[in-house]
Amino acid sequence: MAIYVAVIGPSRASPEIAEAAFQVGALIAGSGAILVCGGGGGAMEAACRGARSAGGTTVGILPGPTREDANPFVDIAIPTGMGEARNALVVRAADAVIAVGGGVGTLSEIGLALKMGKPVVGLGTWTIEAPLSDRVSDRASDGASDLASIVKVDTPEEAVRIALDVTT
Amino acid sequence: MAIYVAVIGPSRASPEIAEAAFQVGALIAGSGAILVCGGGGGAMEAACRGARSAGGTTVGILPGPTREDANPFVDIAIPTGMGEARNALVVRAADAVIAVGGGVGTLSEIGLALKMGKPVVGLGTWTIEAPLSDRVSDRASDGASDLASIVKVDTPEEAVRIALDVTT
Amino acid sequence: MAIYVAVIGPSRASPEIAEAAFQVGALIAGSGAILVCGGGGGAMEAACRGARSAGGTTVGILPGPTREDANPFVDIAIPTGMGEARNALVVRAADAVIAVGGGVGTLSEIGLALKMGKPVVGLGTWTIEAPLSDRVSDRASDGASDLASIVKVDTPEEAVRIALDVTT
Amino acid sequence: MAIYVAVIGPSRASPEIAEAAFQVGALIAGSGAILVCGGGGGAMEAACRGARSAGGTTVGILPGPTREDANPFVDIAIPTGMGEARNALVVRAADAVIAVGGGVGTLSEIGLALKMGKPVVGLGTWTIEAPLSDRVSDRASDGASDLASIVKVDTPEEAVRIALDVTT
Repeated sequence: MAIYVAVIGPSRASPEIAEAAFQVGALIAGSGAILVCGGGGGAMEAACRGARSAGGTTVGILPGPTREDANPFVDIAIPTGMGEARNALVVRAADAVIAVGGGVGTLSEIGLALKMGKPVVGLGTWTIEAPLSDRVSDRASDGASDLASIVKVDTPEEAVRIALDVTT
Repeated sequence: MAIYVAVIGPSRASPEIAEAAFQVGALIAGSGAILVCGGGGGAMEAACRGARSAGGTTVGILPGPTREDANPFVDIAIPTGMGEARNALVVRAADAVIAVGGGVGTLSEIGLALKMGKPVVGLGTWTIEAPLSDRVSDRASDGASDLASIVKVDTPEEAVRIALDVTT
Repeated sequence: MAIYVAVIGPSRASPEIAEAAFQVGALIAGSGAILVCGGGGGAMEAACRGARSAGGTTVGILPGPTREDANPFVDIAIPTGMGEARNALVVRAADAVIAVGGGVGTLSEIGLALKMGKPVVGLGTWTIEAPLSDRVSDRASDGASDLASIVKVDTPEEAVRIALDVTT
Repeated sequence: MAIYVAVIGPSRASPEIAEAAFQVGALIAGSGAILVCGGGGGAMEAACRGARSAGGTTVGILPGPTREDANPFVDIAIPTGMGEARNALVVRAADAVIAVGGGVGTLSEIGLALKMGKPVVGLGTWTIEAPLSDRVSDRASDGASDLASIVKVDTPEEAVRIALDVTT
């Protein structure tokens, strides 16, 4: 059965982030895994372009109601018409998630993936710190039971290697 | 038209977080606003209990398919059967969002709320730091265009006051 | 625990359908049950107006992203931003469903309610006939295992009486 | 840009319905269109098997949270974890919908597709009759404005031909 890896990232990306996303996409495709994303521009488009360049298959799960908004490197476009609620579907579809860069939509997808117990690898993405609750108390361990964290990496190669490792 | 304020927080809460959530709920109800939450236990239940104690109305938007999972202080229970995708509905329903404590589900709701352009006030919750992308590049400003941030506060009073201020 | 009854029907309604929906809403509220609907105009608005006239509580689960589209007789408005996918939430939230009149959205809600095993009462609504599959074969009993049907009635009183009977 | 055709039908199918669904799937794939379905058994599985036999691509949008429930002929599996609400996604993803046989889930998808303005072709499926509202009134034309209907056909060839005609 094929492995699905989601690449999450902002719809407008700097050249560096776009390049990193391209490499991530190419490496995912090179491994034989299917790339899932939100189907938009920026990091998503770069990742799809990378996957396409390596002969892979790309799936875009879109917030709007029509396929027209998909970037041109999406092979299978699923328009949901569900707005931001589609973020849950992007990570639900994946065995592992790689965040490259990040806007606030990416942040929500990181949270959703961790909540679903999926591994999240981060490349130039958000730094998140669980609440110590020390503004309210100095000993609360609130929420600690379901905490998980982002595995931060420095290169596309490392990102994809770790994402694939944890899914097999 | 009524104001709706979402209280987001972990389904298991320390006594301190529960007490803070209770106070937040009571203050929301005291202002005449409707409290929306995920309908579960922990911080959600404490907030509903607080709102109920102040004569308010509470709405719980549940991940599962039946109302039975709602905490006993939910007045209007909406079972979605949509799992984590319901997190988008909790914040969508609100004019402002108050995070009290936080597990990873809370993190996703913070991201979704910021993505929707809703004000987010935090009390003993996550610290999030936007990517500088410096692991990939030292000058990328990726994703900066849609960044927003949590307004961190120290007391329930401050949390509710700010949440209501920004919605009026 | 409160009973929730969904009233489903078209967003533009003839005077007769609107009057029937009004009566259905008033009778639901009179029984102490909570009225759930799609929050729009036509039959939905008439049902909410009826419930409000009888001192009841009305919940509107809206397809769009903002509460502004709710009809003025909705007490609790839940904007989903999910488009037609919200139809599943309207029936999911209810213990029984009453269809009054009907456009194609109503038809979808009838199908969703039957699929979820919820009782559906119909007043001036769709006539549906399960496939005999006789265009393909004269003996197929395809899909028969999960067939359910609409209980057709002639009056608002009968509709609400049956809906409440089956939920208790 | 590729055309997407949804095949909707019951998860348990008679041999005749399964055979019809297989033919429909094969003809869709033969035309170069992508087949979308709910990813389950019965008519869905038969349609995917047919598409696969003709070298086509199949997409299954599943109600549950994991890909394991997909039938073995699904190429791209999208587990939604959204239950029946996923029915809206199946038809949303398609340019035209072919109903083969039908349980109540199929009925809901017919309603959703008509609501979204998508052409629906039916082969051994539901007979639906719009309300005349004559149980409430003899002149109401309620809901007539958004009525659409199923194009009933007798063969897989006709079903696919009409579905492709209306999308081009």
